[in-house]
Amino acid sequence: MRSDILVIGGGIIGLACARELARQGRRVEVVERLHAGSGASIAAAGMLAPLAEVPKPGPFLEACRASRDLWPAWIAELSAETGLSIEYDASGTLLVAHEADEEAHLDKVAHAAAAVGEAAEEIHHDRFREWVPDASPGIRRVLRLLGDHRVDNVQACAVLAAAALAAGVTLNYDVDVERIELLDGGGAEGPGVRIHVRGGAPREADHLVLATGAWSGRIPGLPLLPVRPVRGQALLLQGVEWPWRGCLRSRHGYAVRRGATGLLIGATVEEAGLLAQPTVAGIASLLAFTRHTLPGLDATRLDTLWAGLRPATPDGLPLIGRLPGQPVWIATGHFRNGILLAPWTAREIARQMTGQEPSGEAAGLSPSRFINLPMESEAGSGYTVHS
Amino acid sequence: MRSDILVIGGGIIGLACARELARQGRRVEVVERLHAGSGASIAAAGMLAPLAEVPKPGPFLEACRASRDLWPAWIAELSAETGLSIEYDASGTLLVAHEADEEAHLDKVAHAAAAVGEAAEEIHHDRFREWVPDASPGIRRVLRLLGDHRVDNVQACAVLAAAALAAGVTLNYDVDVERIELLDGGGAEGPGVRIHVRGGAPREADHLVLATGAWSGRIPGLPLLPVRPVRGQALLLQGVEWPWRGCLRSRHGYAVRRGATGLLIGATVEEAGLLAQPTVAGIASLLAFTRHTLPGLDATRLDTLWAGLRPATPDGLPLIGRLPGQPVWIATGHFRNGILLAPWTAREIARQMTGQEPSGEAAGLSPSRFINLPMESEAGSGYTVHS
Repeated sequence: MRSDILVIGGGIIGLACARELARQGRRVEVVERLHAGSGASIAAAGMLAPLAEVPKPGPFLEACRASRDLWPAWIAELSAETGLSIEYDASGTLLVAHEADEEAHLDKVAHAAAAVGEAAEEIHHDRFREWVPDASPGIRRVLRLLGDHRVDNVQACAVLAAAALAAGVTLNYDVDVERIELLDGGGAEGPGVRIHVRGGAPREADHLVLATGAWSGRIPGLPLLPVRPVRGQALLLQGVEWPWRGCLRSRHGYAVRRGATGLLIGATVEEAGLLAQPTVAGIASLLAFTRHTLPGLDATRLDTLWAGLRPATPDGLPLIGRLPGQPVWIATGHFRNGILLAPWTAREIARQMTGQEPSGEAAGLSPSRFINLPMESEAGSGYTVHS
Repeated sequence: MRSDILVIGGGIIGLACARELARQGRRVEVVERLHAGSGASIAAAGMLAPLAEVPKPGPFLEACRASRDLWPAWIAELSAETGLSIEYDASGTLLVAHEADEEAHLDKVAHAAAAVGEAAEEIHHDRFREWVPDASPGIRRVLRLLGDHRVDNVQACAVLAAAALAAGVTLNYDVDVERIELLDGGGAEGPGVRIHVRGGAPREADHLVLATGAWSGRIPGLPLLPVRPVRGQALLLQGVEWPWRGCLRSRHGYAVRRGATGLLIGATVEEAGLLAQPTVAGIASLLAFTRHTLPGLDATRLDTLWAGLRPATPDGLPLIGRLPGQPVWIATGHFRNGILLAPWTAREIARQMTGQEPSGEAAGLSPSRFINLPMESEAGSGYTVHS
């Protein structure tokens, strides 16, 4: 049975879009190469950090802020739909500075916060030490960003998959898409897409949503999307008993609470192809950050190591919107902000797929900025696929 | 049914003793808190390194050399008894020096080798680079110790457990010994030992072998053994493709091949009680050693982290021999040399339990050197246990 919409990619973006579209009455099928909520979605730290990540006023910061604002209600909906909880913390982010250039960065973030009306406050040394007793005495300044929150993204992915199912989405794991074929509408079914998968029958749908993260530049049958993998390594410490339950970051890394006594340390930013593995130099750099910033954790248990692949674009901004002239919508390239932008991306994709114009926050995110295609208004117009 | 011999501890020492004694016709039972081949036995790197570990002529070096010499035939026996293989490599150990004090250490080891007739040869830079292409160009001297070998200790423990079973040993896992009771021989069964275990019936035997590694100082019912845990952290890299298949070490750490592309990096030496966990500072130090010695491995996959607890004694030597006046033999305190000394320890314990005098190599290893007990020749003589 042909679906209305086929979503390729069962990460947080694909699942969020699938659930949103199914709730609007569409028949939605998700195909995922591994399992729902894999890849960068579970490798991420779960920071919802518009200011620390995008300290520059403009439409993209507005998209990040809008998505941050959507998160609490989104969690409430997902929990109501599934009966499952998701850890969310609104304590904020402590941006710390050791050296002069880090102080300049704090000033920049504080100015961006003031410009857009986000709360930021200087934290006195004594209060900081009470919150984060393992911190370095060499930290000379601490800025608390009250609007940079965190969510347990591993929980969120699992709950989102359950919510998608509850909304009627069909989830197919272990489906390796080999090629996408755009249908010209000459057949009985009209225009649409067909995907060819390894070791299985082709699948068809009227529309396609591509949410394949770091793998988005590699699926034959679509115009080449300029998405490349950027590796991030991270590690998890266990046994951390701070009063502070939010995030802490400097220019050199971050520390994010996870669960009762966990502390996630991240992350490297490396061009290493699709090799998602922790390395000697990567973990050494994370431990160097940890020991420099949080020397009180020297004897703390190092529990787990991992790596994920961020989907990066040439201008650092996501690709969100329709592929010109085709029944294909792109939702990828979120780089470091995929968790943050998931609810907003789902809303934006659903908006555009119902024929509305892109929102103002989506200005500059259209995939057409990188794709040299004839702009056509009609779907299935005979555009030839070169794979 | 009362056993002839009860062995407490299913690590490599306990299993080796149990198999040896069972092959001599004794009815042997092993009780192990976790599972056979756990604790330090599987945390170890598997170096069989008399010279690098004990570069000082004397009885203990002779015990280490004797045990090293027993290993190949022991592996052949274990394999014949089980049909299972054990990876063993006799390429030797490359002792490398960056700085002047490390060169002095090489001289010391070379002199010890010459004194006892162990082969050691200087390796030319070009040959070293060919064998270990990821090594630092800053390594100024390399000494190959041809007699310091390696074995896959994880495989060895598994095969040894199977060989012990094949020899008729009874293995009981998940048995937590709460107290040892020495029996005075007033009952029907004569003198012996009784162990009280958590949640189970007591067990009795005529004789006891204590092979409880780092936990040896903590079992109520015996005189206090001066054994303390000394933590060692280690990590495993994967994807190393060197021609060199042996060991490499400096004064600051070691790198040991494991399996087809594995490289084990070890180990910290820490007093941290019974907390067998990798830590921030420990893993950082191992990675610092790796990057200093083998900078070509920066992009290599960091696969696994772990920690184990070595059983250490005040003089650094094992406790091997009878507890004076009791039906109790001690085989613990092997510190960094438990894998190396396993076959020799089994032979020595079996020798002493059949009434022979300790071998010359066992000089100075008797537990009586630390235990202030009346020396009595008769077992079950009414010695009172204070727990």
